[in-house]
Amino acid sequence: MATSRLTPDEVKALFSKLSNWGRWGKEDERGALNFINDKKRAAAGKLIQTGEVVSLALPLATAPGPDNPTPVTHLMTQVGHDAHEQQLLPYSGDYFAIAPHGLATTHIDALCHVFWEGKMYNGFDASEVGSHGAKKCAIDVTRDGVVSRGVLLDIPKIKKVEWLEPGDRIFPEDLDAAEKDHKVTVEEGDVLLIRTGRDRRRRTKGPWDAFREGLAGLDASCLPWLHERRIAVLGSDGASDVVPSGYTGISMPIHSCTLVMLGVHLIDNGDFEALATACARNGRYAFNFVMAPLILRHGTASPVNPLAVF
Amino acid sequence: MATSRLTPDEVKALFSKLSNWGRWGKEDERGALNFINDKKRAAAGKLIQTGEVVSLALPLATAPGPDNPTPVTHLMTQVGHDAHEQQLLPYSGDYFAIAPHGLATTHIDALCHVFWEGKMYNGFDASEVGSHGAKKCAIDVTRDGVVSRGVLLDIPKIKKVEWLEPGDRIFPEDLDAAEKDHKVTVEEGDVLLIRTGRDRRRRTKGPWDAFREGLAGLDASCLPWLHERRIAVLGSDGASDVVPSGYTGISMPIHSCTLVMLGVHLIDNGDFEALATACARNGRYAFNFVMAPLILRHGTASPVNPLAVF
Amino acid sequence: MATSRLTPDEVKALFSKLSNWGRWGKEDERGALNFINDKKRAAAGKLIQTGEVVSLALPLATAPGPDNPTPVTHLMTQVGHDAHEQQLLPYSGDYFAIAPHGLATTHIDALCHVFWEGKMYNGFDASEVGSHGAKKCAIDVTRDGVVSRGVLLDIPKIKKVEWLEPGDRIFPEDLDAAEKDHKVTVEEGDVLLIRTGRDRRRRTKGPWDAFREGLAGLDASCLPWLHERRIAVLGSDGASDVVPSGYTGISMPIHSCTLVMLGVHLIDNGDFEALATACARNGRYAFNFVMAPLILRHGTASPVNPLAVF
Amino acid sequence: MATSRLTPDEVKALFSKLSNWGRWGKEDERGALNFINDKKRAAAGKLIQTGEVVSLALPLATAPGPDNPTPVTHLMTQVGHDAHEQQLLPYSGDYFAIAPHGLATTHIDALCHVFWEGKMYNGFDASEVGSHGAKKCAIDVTRDGVVSRGVLLDIPKIKKVEWLEPGDRIFPEDLDAAEKDHKVTVEEGDVLLIRTGRDRRRRTKGPWDAFREGLAGLDASCLPWLHERRIAVLGSDGASDVVPSGYTGISMPIHSCTLVMLGVHLIDNGDFEALATACARNGRYAFNFVMAPLILRHGTASPVNPLAVF
Repeated sequence: MATSRLTPDEVKALFSKLSNWGRWGKEDERGALNFINDKKRAAAGKLIQTGEVVSLALPLATAPGPDNPTPVTHLMTQVGHDAHEQQLLPYSGDYFAIAPHGLATTHIDALCHVFWEGKMYNGFDASEVGSHGAKKCAIDVTRDGVVSRGVLLDIPKIKKVEWLEPGDRIFPEDLDAAEKDHKVTVEEGDVLLIRTGRDRRRRTKGPWDAFREGLAGLDASCLPWLHERRIAVLGSDGASDVVPSGYTGISMPIHSCTLVMLGVHLIDNGDFEALATACARNGRYAFNFVMAPLILRHGTASPVNPLAVF
Repeated sequence: MATSRLTPDEVKALFSKLSNWGRWGKEDERGALNFINDKKRAAAGKLIQTGEVVSLALPLATAPGPDNPTPVTHLMTQVGHDAHEQQLLPYSGDYFAIAPHGLATTHIDALCHVFWEGKMYNGFDASEVGSHGAKKCAIDVTRDGVVSRGVLLDIPKIKKVEWLEPGDRIFPEDLDAAEKDHKVTVEEGDVLLIRTGRDRRRRTKGPWDAFREGLAGLDASCLPWLHERRIAVLGSDGASDVVPSGYTGISMPIHSCTLVMLGVHLIDNGDFEALATACARNGRYAFNFVMAPLILRHGTASPVNPLAVF
Repeated sequence: MATSRLTPDEVKALFSKLSNWGRWGKEDERGALNFINDKKRAAAGKLIQTGEVVSLALPLATAPGPDNPTPVTHLMTQVGHDAHEQQLLPYSGDYFAIAPHGLATTHIDALCHVFWEGKMYNGFDASEVGSHGAKKCAIDVTRDGVVSRGVLLDIPKIKKVEWLEPGDRIFPEDLDAAEKDHKVTVEEGDVLLIRTGRDRRRRTKGPWDAFREGLAGLDASCLPWLHERRIAVLGSDGASDVVPSGYTGISMPIHSCTLVMLGVHLIDNGDFEALATACARNGRYAFNFVMAPLILRHGTASPVNPLAVF
Repeated sequence: MATSRLTPDEVKALFSKLSNWGRWGKEDERGALNFINDKKRAAAGKLIQTGEVVSLALPLATAPGPDNPTPVTHLMTQVGHDAHEQQLLPYSGDYFAIAPHGLATTHIDALCHVFWEGKMYNGFDASEVGSHGAKKCAIDVTRDGVVSRGVLLDIPKIKKVEWLEPGDRIFPEDLDAAEKDHKVTVEEGDVLLIRTGRDRRRRTKGPWDAFREGLAGLDASCLPWLHERRIAVLGSDGASDVVPSGYTGISMPIHSCTLVMLGVHLIDNGDFEALATACARNGRYAFNFVMAPLILRHGTASPVNPLAVF
């Protein structure tokens, strides 16, 4: 695909131009989640028609690999053979440890996850995130879940490929083309999901190290588009950003701008293969979307298992 | 409240009588989740009317306490002050470790969590749960979430008390009375949620050690009721079981019978205070219920943040 | 026992007066470990005569309790029943997680563990300890172990009690009296170990919360004594400090002054019961001391199992 | 170097022939540690002459790599910037999690770590190691440390190479040749350390995956030699075993036979580079050896930092 179109300075200018700081008050920590309200959720509920449900998450990745240098630790606290020691209530139990930000974990980034020039969303200082966690913009702003309309834009479908290759970049006209193809328009409060086909590629060709070998994703020139549509949340089966970004000095402009300037939470490393199939089969790319992050006070992320209901 | 009515032998006889083993085939690992189908989910979708959403979960409990001997570990991998070391993408990140079964964590028990006479649901042997996790009936049978109709039965409301006291037991006629009061009937495939008021008590009187001091919950005599209604999942703001059980040799008969014999997954330690308020305000005790456990292959549980949408 | 003798201002004045900052160069991170050299170790080797060896450590504490709010997590990665799955090399394995600073863990504090007025030993700034660990004065300065002469001062012995009570304070004249009784003189480079009898009390009366109920230890008036003797390391079966300290605004003056000003590493929560018995039986309170902290780069502590060889 | 000399059946026959089961009583869990007594330790103390001390351990390996698929987790509980929140005692603290058996961690294997035909040392059943740890032959049998004479056999030195290559095997005549070259004889109760030069190779050529690419070590034909010398502990800068073993059906015959049949604890993944230099400089290959495993009840291993004192 084509290369980047902007200069790094133009990207940085976009960051300033697209700021939502102060839009919902100077103490606001929820950002674009404010685009979702009861009315939006009620309307999204109407999208439930067949009752079909699809998970948008990868299983928690407990095996090390090129895309998983720090796998989830999963250990047992008691196994079946020892359960009889608890005569009155024989049971098994387990334990897991996870650093949710990681290229093999489906997770939501809190707005405190990324900083730009020392600030997070709404101008809160980076120093608000200390060793006891985030005092501002932590993941528990999503304690009541994210329930809204979800929209999938399936880019490989419109490109007529099985998957985008690492480093392939998506431009605003691709988003427009997908909307047209899918007969859907992204609207205020939507959870926008971008499919690059990463999981299909992984299943076919094996996992790869995205930081070294690249990842398909959105070019920074999509930022105005995302801002204009007033999306509430952005998700991808990659990292939303194209890697490498192509902009010297700005590693992940989509991350930096959506989280910090727009106040848009991100879902990274979703698995949208089953969703793409379901959308195609149902003939619609909008659905009821539900995601319920764990309520981790002061946390910077949560592993999630988002659901689409048709 | 009253004491237990059955003998331990009568409870054990119930276990045999109420078995769903084989009901959905001898290889089935999903149990009563089979009561939920697309039609049920589509009908539950119709319950979304106002768009109001309520979380049914406690925050992850990171502080030790009488009800939390092994708190969630939450640590930072990078704080704001150090973020600048990542010049191209300054970020913060964290890590958490959790043993999900525990009296301060809202979690779902997989069917492999409890054994009766060396067996789990559908007759699978306890030895199927080894040091690499559960080979049968693991939590990832819920990978596509649990989406259905939820019904709250608010027992303190019908007892006209703020909360049930530790050790208070709930009988089938209480469930009937709550249905009548709430103008709702528990049906096939429902997620049945029982409020005891535990969280209101905790906020007022402080936490307590449920194993030593007791917990309000269902008497074993409710088991036939649960079976007849063909519920898919049972949840409580306690442990569903009354503690102590009152039955010598059977520590938690609701746990043992629902998980092992009925194949009913359990939600333990929910927080139903906001839900009770929402039900009362909306004048209905049935709602769209969505829960998306993490996809932990071979896991015995997942922390969850279940949602009710009105 | 008696109460504190100094004013808080007098204690703070001691901190300035007793400083070893710059004594071993302005880049030094080893502090009073510099008092130990080959000659000292060779001399300590001569103390090995009978070959008797004694551990000075508690077992790692995996059970929660009043003195252990965050116990060591110990879990199995593979148990015996599953070992046969590894046909060529059937094995078992495990995993543990530990926050070494804690009242139930025998550990060594690195010099970066405590700050006074924003500085650690030798004037390094507190900000040198970030989310990737300590860049200065980390525990790996002890990578080649601490091998020296050890001296036990058994305070309950000279007080003719089984143990000191929580809050009992030890004064310089007690140290002098113990030396006289034990026929030993603390010298340059020694590892000085102070027994309060805490473990005997714990075994007899059960564990207690030292922060609420107190701990026997050294009064701040011992600081000049510790400085004059040029000890290399200080250890105790408590926390070296008496708790509460008795000095408003200075919670643990021994910790603050030894770690920050003297550059003396501390061993907290040793178990000196077997050592006291061995010293009494051997008729000497000096012995070969060996401690080998784990080499945790950037770490603030290590759990340890110090040994005394007679 | 040469290939294996025995048949797999001959190796298995050695296992039976070299058994120490019952040698120290049928309840014994310490195995060849019984070869060390006060007299041995007293004699080893005489080896302390210059006072020079050398660590035999690698730093804990917190970075993932080809030889470290599950790195040590090291995280901060409090950093310097946040320390001021503790006004009375500003401090920093940390946390680490480790699975000690691993190719990048210097550790001691407990006798319960490996099984042969379903049994561990002294005939205890593999099932003694359950989800709550090892009931027999756990690592806490070393609670009073391992203090003895240490002997290094530096195989690259006698082969006149910088290091052995992965897969290179060491035969009994190599051990004899090293003894002769080093003017030392391995004796009852010694801790025998075998240098292959692995760390020098790693520093020069980078880390490698030993399971795929091999590791230099002892051929199974060394087992009678090890048995005859009545060593207490065996250690290596590799895994003692040559990898691959060259014996079909026996992955690590040195591990299996020493741990299970001889009752010899193993030190894996030591770093003997500094030790080799010190031995050469001091002109002697015997020294005072001290190792103090953490007292992890029911544990199968401990990370260690063994020390050699000259």
